[in-house]
Amino acid sequence: MQETPSLALTFLERSQALVDDELKRLLSASPAPSVRLSEAMAYSVLGGGKRIRPALCLAAAQAMGQDITKALVPACAVEAIHAYSLVHDDLPAMDDDNLRRGRPTVHIAFDEATAILAGDALQACAFNWLAQTPSISDRARLSMVAELAVASGQAGMVGGQAIDLESVGKTLTIESLETMHRHKTGALIEASVRLGAMTADPAPGDQLDRLTDYASALGLAFQVQDDLLDIEGDTNVIGKPQGSDLARDKPTYPSLLGIDGAKAHLQTLLDRALAQLDSFGDNAEPLRAIANYIVVRSH
Amino acid sequence: MQETPSLALTFLERSQALVDDELKRLLSASPAPSVRLSEAMAYSVLGGGKRIRPALCLAAAQAMGQDITKALVPACAVEAIHAYSLVHDDLPAMDDDNLRRGRPTVHIAFDEATAILAGDALQACAFNWLAQTPSISDRARLSMVAELAVASGQAGMVGGQAIDLESVGKTLTIESLETMHRHKTGALIEASVRLGAMTADPAPGDQLDRLTDYASALGLAFQVQDDLLDIEGDTNVIGKPQGSDLARDKPTYPSLLGIDGAKAHLQTLLDRALAQLDSFGDNAEPLRAIANYIVVRSH
Repeated sequence: MQETPSLALTFLERSQALVDDELKRLLSASPAPSVRLSEAMAYSVLGGGKRIRPALCLAAAQAMGQDITKALVPACAVEAIHAYSLVHDDLPAMDDDNLRRGRPTVHIAFDEATAILAGDALQACAFNWLAQTPSISDRARLSMVAELAVASGQAGMVGGQAIDLESVGKTLTIESLETMHRHKTGALIEASVRLGAMTADPAPGDQLDRLTDYASALGLAFQVQDDLLDIEGDTNVIGKPQGSDLARDKPTYPSLLGIDGAKAHLQTLLDRALAQLDSFGDNAEPLRAIANYIVVRSH
Repeated sequence: MQETPSLALTFLERSQALVDDELKRLLSASPAPSVRLSEAMAYSVLGGGKRIRPALCLAAAQAMGQDITKALVPACAVEAIHAYSLVHDDLPAMDDDNLRRGRPTVHIAFDEATAILAGDALQACAFNWLAQTPSISDRARLSMVAELAVASGQAGMVGGQAIDLESVGKTLTIESLETMHRHKTGALIEASVRLGAMTADPAPGDQLDRLTDYASALGLAFQVQDDLLDIEGDTNVIGKPQGSDLARDKPTYPSLLGIDGAKAHLQTLLDRALAQLDSFGDNAEPLRAIANYIVVRSH
């Protein structure tokens, strides 16, 4: 256990460098007629971030015995979706956040209209890039497009964001909270892992199922840790005002389970995620390391 | 010329009925976990509208000798993109419109956050549907996904909207105005025609080029007529306050060319569009009829 966080950091750092380079390449390949829009898109996507989702995509490819570079374009597509969702979530009509990763959010650094458009354009980028993923069959690329569209749309991420907005100020059961998170963040984390796995073309169904279960447990663990960090973390480290969920009266795991209960739940979810990786042997080391990293991370 | 508007209406009505039924089927096939979100999406997409873009998609399939039903899913995908763009364009941070097709806009009928999310989810729908278009090859479906993503993204529609926002209050040349419209509305009209044509799988390049040129001229003609209607139309018929472009100090064709100059330009564009259809014979009748209809329409 001592070694896994550092393996995770090594893999995350390598993955981050690969993904950042590829995102720059992809963004500059189709410039916008509006310089301001291009700048806002680059600001949204290239402003740092841990790149957990792309790393999961690359790590899932490795778990399936594939070269991780085969998953690079799908990883960037997932990150473009994630970036667009953050830009729109931060808007005044949504979460109204002025700060993200220690920098002004896009509608503050630019303006609201540009933030809406940059998000819209990034979503289109994701599907354009994905349709042109090299080294896999047309069939696999189409499956990836459909998977990402479903995971990011009304039955997935956007649906979860809608439930989240409707939940403010309400008392939720733990089941309702999980339903919200499974949509809002879980669906895209599952898609990150599944798209990476699908670079093994075709990916055997039983292996895809196990990796999906890994991602499903990990997605919830990620959210529990986020809730804990919101209470226990430091604004300078987490990059947003600490306690902002509480201030907004948003339901969280600690508010429903208590801090100790939330920590126990986190460990259960981590164990469940790791158990799915047993049959993958050494190829799944990066997926194990990322899971452990998510639980020990401080932001 | 007497007959074409009525042929256009016949084709438009038939196309509208087919597209409305298919949109209802597609929307209900993947319900959102948030009822409010589902309702906002349906309100955005099923609230009427002339369905010009889907009709062009079906008519282009017919021009290529295909059964128009082969183009039904691509037609709905194009309409989902168009609907999402209207919802986002109407937002307070963008054009701030309260009325669209005589009804309250989505952020008025629901709320701003729901309007942003409904638009986001509709964009995802478009790519999900397109990836699953029946009766064409995987290769053709992938090409459609890439085409629609480029046409609707930063190099197309969204880029045009960004230029439009930057142009308010500025004096544009006719060339700059055309560049803006080629992106903002032209790219999606071209994609509508091209996606329909691509149901002839594979679509011969020279025929695709001619239909692209038809769509390019038609897209500009559509915009010139829109600008003329904004000056000469009646609020009750056009569904938005007449003179709203002038009130906003937006550059228009009549403001640059005068009303007579704009009308002459409209005729030139129409002739240019129709000339591209000569080699397609009777199969192109619906495309001809739609072009004529666009020029004589009153809203």
